[in-house]
Amino acid sequence: MKSLLLVAHGSRRAESNIEIATLAARLADKASGEYDIVEHAFLELADPLIPDGIERCIAKGATSVQVIPYFLARGTHVADDIPEQVAIKQAEYPDMDIRITRYLGTSDEMVDVLLTLAR
Amino acid sequence: MKSLLLVAHGSRRAESNIEIATLAARLADKASGEYDIVEHAFLELADPLIPDGIERCIAKGATSVQVIPYFLARGTHVADDIPEQVAIKQAEYPDMDIRITRYLGTSDEMVDVLLTLAR
Repeated sequence: MKSLLLVAHGSRRAESNIEIATLAARLADKASGEYDIVEHAFLELADPLIPDGIERCIAKGATSVQVIPYFLARGTHVADDIPEQVAIKQAEYPDMDIRITRYLGTSDEMVDVLLTLAR
Repeated sequence: MKSLLLVAHGSRRAESNIEIATLAARLADKASGEYDIVEHAFLELADPLIPDGIERCIAKGATSVQVIPYFLARGTHVADDIPEQVAIKQAEYPDMDIRITRYLGTSDEMVDVLLTLAR
């Protein structure tokens, strides 16, 4: 069973974290058939944190986890912090296929998304 | 002449700011014919700041400016800071049509973008 884990920074503002949960729910709808499990997690400041998010996927029967960094720029969080957190769980579950996709800001479609917002 | 102003947070890391300039250049390519002028600006930490970005559009002959907030969550920056900066220039140029679009995180297409990253 393939799973997706949407990873955002996390905020002290509950509304921002709820936005992420809502987005993950929409992603789950759209991904159904292709990805059986969709969860979300935060790097810091909010629950679930990344290791717990990966655990949730595994508890639901995931055999692979694609971690999608919901970040616009390649800062320390994308370059170091998320890979470190993921590596901890990968070491714990060596047979699990856990990968980190490109971060949101690198999306080829970003230009189209921005144009649609402008229109 | 219609213009777009892509507004990002701004970073102490030059690479992050260059990513925004590059994205604005791609946006300019894609928007040509529809928007004559595409500039970028930062809320803080990097140049040009928002008022200067709006000035650049006007200096190039813009009669309207669409400000696109390149932000994922509706924090203080989106809710207060960007509107405040824009309002200053709107007061200075009452005949100029300056609008702020929805911020990136509200894009209906975000789910598709994330799925493409996962695949």
